[in-house]
Amino acid sequence: MWDQLWVDVRVATAVGGGTPFGLVEAAAVAVSADRIAWVGPAAALPAPPGALARQLHQGHGRLVTPGLVDCHTHLIFGGDRALDFDLRAQGATYAAIATAGGGIRSTVAHTRKLSVAELAAAALPRARALLADGVTTLEVKSGYGLDVASELKMLEAARLVGAQLDVEIVPTLLALHALPAEFAADRAGYVDLVVRELIPAAAAAGLARAVDVFCETIAFTRDECARALRAAREHGLAVKVHADQLSDCGGAALAAEFGALSADHLEYSGEAGVAALAASGTVAVLLPGAYLMLGETQRPPLAALRAHGVPLAVATDLNPGTSPCTSLSLALALARAQFGLSAEEGLAAVTRVAARALGLEASRGTLEAGKRADFCLWDLAHPRELGYWLGAGACQAVVRGGRVRAAATA
Amino acid sequence: MWDQLWVDVRVATAVGGGTPFGLVEAAAVAVSADRIAWVGPAAALPAPPGALARQLHQGHGRLVTPGLVDCHTHLIFGGDRALDFDLRAQGATYAAIATAGGGIRSTVAHTRKLSVAELAAAALPRARALLADGVTTLEVKSGYGLDVASELKMLEAARLVGAQLDVEIVPTLLALHALPAEFAADRAGYVDLVVRELIPAAAAAGLARAVDVFCETIAFTRDECARALRAAREHGLAVKVHADQLSDCGGAALAAEFGALSADHLEYSGEAGVAALAASGTVAVLLPGAYLMLGETQRPPLAALRAHGVPLAVATDLNPGTSPCTSLSLALALARAQFGLSAEEGLAAVTRVAARALGLEASRGTLEAGKRADFCLWDLAHPRELGYWLGAGACQAVVRGGRVRAAATA
Repeated sequence: MWDQLWVDVRVATAVGGGTPFGLVEAAAVAVSADRIAWVGPAAALPAPPGALARQLHQGHGRLVTPGLVDCHTHLIFGGDRALDFDLRAQGATYAAIATAGGGIRSTVAHTRKLSVAELAAAALPRARALLADGVTTLEVKSGYGLDVASELKMLEAARLVGAQLDVEIVPTLLALHALPAEFAADRAGYVDLVVRELIPAAAAAGLARAVDVFCETIAFTRDECARALRAAREHGLAVKVHADQLSDCGGAALAAEFGALSADHLEYSGEAGVAALAASGTVAVLLPGAYLMLGETQRPPLAALRAHGVPLAVATDLNPGTSPCTSLSLALALARAQFGLSAEEGLAAVTRVAARALGLEASRGTLEAGKRADFCLWDLAHPRELGYWLGAGACQAVVRGGRVRAAATA
Repeated sequence: MWDQLWVDVRVATAVGGGTPFGLVEAAAVAVSADRIAWVGPAAALPAPPGALARQLHQGHGRLVTPGLVDCHTHLIFGGDRALDFDLRAQGATYAAIATAGGGIRSTVAHTRKLSVAELAAAALPRARALLADGVTTLEVKSGYGLDVASELKMLEAARLVGAQLDVEIVPTLLALHALPAEFAADRAGYVDLVVRELIPAAAAAGLARAVDVFCETIAFTRDECARALRAAREHGLAVKVHADQLSDCGGAALAAEFGALSADHLEYSGEAGVAALAASGTVAVLLPGAYLMLGETQRPPLAALRAHGVPLAVATDLNPGTSPCTSLSLALALARAQFGLSAEEGLAAVTRVAARALGLEASRGTLEAGKRADFCLWDLAHPRELGYWLGAGACQAVVRGGRVRAAATA
């Protein structure tokens, strides 16, 4: 006997290759423990619903989708950057903002000052907002510590948030994000520290599943990033790359060379980089919040990405400096409006493909028997409405790991 | 004795000309019946707080702002336009969308089919989303009926939503929005109907406070709009204009000529139109949701608007076709990111100036003794964070007309 049976639902399974959105009308979803036991048309159920499950849930015709997967966040940080945003929107230069005490260094200073518990407490409202909007798995990066102890502290805070909210947080060591002030005259020394101490320590402590690097003119060179990624592979960690956000500096090709799970941003990637991503099976993660907040006008090369068959994910990029976005459905709407993603690409981008960007496609991202019982009930008539409304509130209930929660307290 | 006294709050009164944001630190706010009785530094209270009010509320340091005023919405409509958005984002032309059964005519068809009660029921979740995000007064336009009975039905539905949610809805007859199919060969006949029957009927029934027109190449000419606006003035109704959204067709100047409360959109307004708005004291209402969803690249002329001293408001433009936006704080974030509004301009734009765009500046839009007790408590450290976060959830409580509500059930 199943634990739960959901009936009178319209299910967008997000399984590719079948009906658009993997849509199943007049469907039913069965849950056993923390797994999907059965999903399909209610008419195909093997017996009357009442006889099949301990709990029978009426969906009242609501739309069900897989739980959303936010595959790129910087959830953990101290302080905010609202002043930077205000200055930048009015045309202040990066230098003027830094002079006013802003920029990433201000976030680093605030983050270093806080304890694990304080960092987790600051992140909780943001994490709750993501969960209330249907996120059931989220990636969280370090990258504002910039020394070994502070980077590990961020990863511990991410783990603590996961425990406090009973949600799976996939931790990523953002090993090369910015050069800390104390290494301003010694770039190689900082990369040495990352390669010889930080990556081994994070791996040994089991605090990260992947290593990420910011390959950009204002951040780290391709060679510096390659050193860190080699170290990641040596320690058995997966690889991700912040690639080509502000210029075509070879980030996509670098990601492909290391078989990265994902290459993220990609506004300035050229055809060669895109082809390389396709060959390596790397997911392209689009981050439309930063595009909006930075007033960017160069869109990621969607036509090339589609032509080469690169899988497309969308994430919030939740961070204080360039994307203070706490709603993945809003990030999806921004991707549809700004980048021209179709509704069907959009659903896959925040479920099936986002799971793949975390290496979790075997257990998440679609509604299929055997996968984790992570799904959302939406007050929406059709999956194309996900990422159409600008404003949250459509998520009515979340089932996470087989446990039912009202969205407001997800 | 006051009815309520709120202490340990940081108040952004949105009163202009003083401290930025009208900020008062360590403040207190007193309420008598449905009015603000007192606001200022707690140290200036005339007696110990406990002796002053029947109810003492602890703000725990939270930010208090005036209740938000959404001064431009099309809240009432049947159906949705998610399919249009999906097609348009992928590059479909207006004609292709119309052929697929989309466009404004599909909204008109859905709207005409529904009763007053059905229209109100469809609008309730959208209105609740606005209220949960801090809106305490909202304007609602007709404009999807396009015949006398259907236009009045929409205004009655707006009134019903106001009664059901106990919120003040300011109704506007959007008299010239689109030419109904049945008048395709008789533009003048439709304008006659609007001038001779619709406007008089709405005025006689007390169903509208203002008349709005869509002055645009794809909608109505300046002369057609002028006829409707003259009729509005003759019937004692205020005037608003959808102006220069897609081309500089003299909409701003028309609004100024009729002393309009507001001219809305303004992406293509030229210097002369802006100067005319300044001279007439007309508010410029910026609608960044439509700018985003339409992929517009021509920004409203902010520099000219500022140089001429035109007051700036921001609204959701909530509508199914071009701005399905149910969060005014999100609209504010879009205005700040896309148009470069400063944080301080932004707070005024959704409070003080928005109230003026509705002719309600005497009773709303700032926190001052004598005004209506409409205010919000936010989980934000500083008013510049309003319209910084992309995603709702920061509004913790709302006081509307002196009644305290949790934001989730506002």
